[in-house]
Amino acid sequence: MGPTIKLSSGYEMPQVGFGLWKVDNATAADTVYNAIKVGYRLFDGACDYGNEKECGEGIARAIKEGLVTREQLFITSKLWPVFEDGDKVEPAIKRSLADWGLDYFDLYLIHFPGALKYVDPSVRYPPGWHYDGKSETVRSKTPMHVTWAAMESVVDKGLARSIGISNFQAQLIYDMLRYARIPPAALQIEHHPYLVQQELLNLCKAENIAVTAYSSFGPASFLTFGFKHAQALKPLMEDELIVDIAKKHGKEPSQILLRWATQRGLAVIPKTSRTAVMAQNLDCTDFDLEQGEIDKITAKDAGIRFNQPSNYFETDKFWIFG
Amino acid sequence: MGPTIKLSSGYEMPQVGFGLWKVDNATAADTVYNAIKVGYRLFDGACDYGNEKECGEGIARAIKEGLVTREQLFITSKLWPVFEDGDKVEPAIKRSLADWGLDYFDLYLIHFPGALKYVDPSVRYPPGWHYDGKSETVRSKTPMHVTWAAMESVVDKGLARSIGISNFQAQLIYDMLRYARIPPAALQIEHHPYLVQQELLNLCKAENIAVTAYSSFGPASFLTFGFKHAQALKPLMEDELIVDIAKKHGKEPSQILLRWATQRGLAVIPKTSRTAVMAQNLDCTDFDLEQGEIDKITAKDAGIRFNQPSNYFETDKFWIFG
Repeated sequence: MGPTIKLSSGYEMPQVGFGLWKVDNATAADTVYNAIKVGYRLFDGACDYGNEKECGEGIARAIKEGLVTREQLFITSKLWPVFEDGDKVEPAIKRSLADWGLDYFDLYLIHFPGALKYVDPSVRYPPGWHYDGKSETVRSKTPMHVTWAAMESVVDKGLARSIGISNFQAQLIYDMLRYARIPPAALQIEHHPYLVQQELLNLCKAENIAVTAYSSFGPASFLTFGFKHAQALKPLMEDELIVDIAKKHGKEPSQILLRWATQRGLAVIPKTSRTAVMAQNLDCTDFDLEQGEIDKITAKDAGIRFNQPSNYFETDKFWIFG
Repeated sequence: MGPTIKLSSGYEMPQVGFGLWKVDNATAADTVYNAIKVGYRLFDGACDYGNEKECGEGIARAIKEGLVTREQLFITSKLWPVFEDGDKVEPAIKRSLADWGLDYFDLYLIHFPGALKYVDPSVRYPPGWHYDGKSETVRSKTPMHVTWAAMESVVDKGLARSIGISNFQAQLIYDMLRYARIPPAALQIEHHPYLVQQELLNLCKAENIAVTAYSSFGPASFLTFGFKHAQALKPLMEDELIVDIAKKHGKEPSQILLRWATQRGLAVIPKTSRTAVMAQNLDCTDFDLEQGEIDKITAKDAGIRFNQPSNYFETDKFWIFG
């Protein structure tokens, strides 16, 4: 099943997985089923992706056909901010589990720090940013230590084997490490050559927090949102340095980008709908880049972040990084 | 007394003050006394600066001579990380107050986020980073919400009129705003044209947190530490853009740097030992830059931070920003 990363919870996490963000509902079941056939064992989902039901159908079919067992899979889901009030965490994970047709997640992450006002699933699900295009998002008064205690209790109840965080920065992580009974096993962050976040990676290494990179291909993931800074940048797949290294190793540029991350110890969760590319992406740990090549790619760091809520809205009042 | 900023606590804070970092013990009393004579009313101190006693002597002399009353002054001090355990906050502020010879601070800030292991003042005071040059700093288990509750109680007890934070980033501030009974009235951060932190400023504006800029002159404040990236950068005082704008307005480059900050709504706390420069620095709000000039200076932003603990040590395991 390929290389794994040992989490602080004691469980093993596959280093290369399949990301389910922006996987269409119409094709999600087939995509997941095909990815399992190709060899993927980790699937990275979220309430917010709006496709947990369909993804679960793909898994159910693969299990039914005997391609794989539940225990061989590693399924991640994520808690959306409007469910970060202490009493909303358990219902939220149970809803996601029901959609997937599972009785536990291997990993359950807080999708973004900062509780927002509760939205009842009967009103809107997935609830999105609770932003009407005009007003601000509405903050809930629940601080992170309350949300985290609720996350710990879903481990106690067997609903998640490991828990972690996503899109968190250093100061909030350090604070969490001070009050956590169960420390976060994993952090998922935007990570590509334009956004390396080396200090955050150092912190996680020192604190035994596994890091999963999302948007490994950089701006490519954000072109559909019309982000000007994503459109203005040269696609990493066409970047001269990446292309040269790919030629040298007889690999695809995408594989170089994934190997750059995995060789530096990160997990990756690329997405594609094409079966051939699925196999390519999964097959990104059987060759090694030279340290000089790794360093050159790392040196492209420009601190450019695409996936921040304020990028999606016409507002300067909603900022959770920095 | 010059322009002031109304804090969320209801008190007024002078927009231009005097920073006491790196003011020598031998000259601190005279420096503070002279600064009061020149017209300064805000003095920005800290336990860590190791000169609170001498600074207090300067104030006492000025009050005794009738230059100023206690009520006309605005005195800031800061809580050092080794005193961030809940039960250590009150003794720490009382020690600082005793050193100053005061019975309240106008503003008391958490100097850096992240409690470190307690150091008894009888062992070492000021305690510094509790770093022996080889090992890591030792974390205390106290999370920020516990420290902040203790900060709120020093307001209840009349030991500080306003409380705030320093060197905090967005996510931790947002978390604090969720649990604070008394929200932070002020944030003090490194801020100069090489480190603008516009999103953090936007956050503070939206949340009614006054921002005080430290190290307004940029790398100049850090040359004595031998920071290579400070030495490699052109001093802002000699920067062509800053010098040109200064000439146009008949002002000093330092005044342009301070006006750029104050005109954008920040408070500043420059330091100097020269009386003539004291007057110059204080006199930085009686002229206006054009919006185009402000924008050009802001555009110099390069995200370069000097005052981070990891810069002072040979370690990559101690990082509190990012």
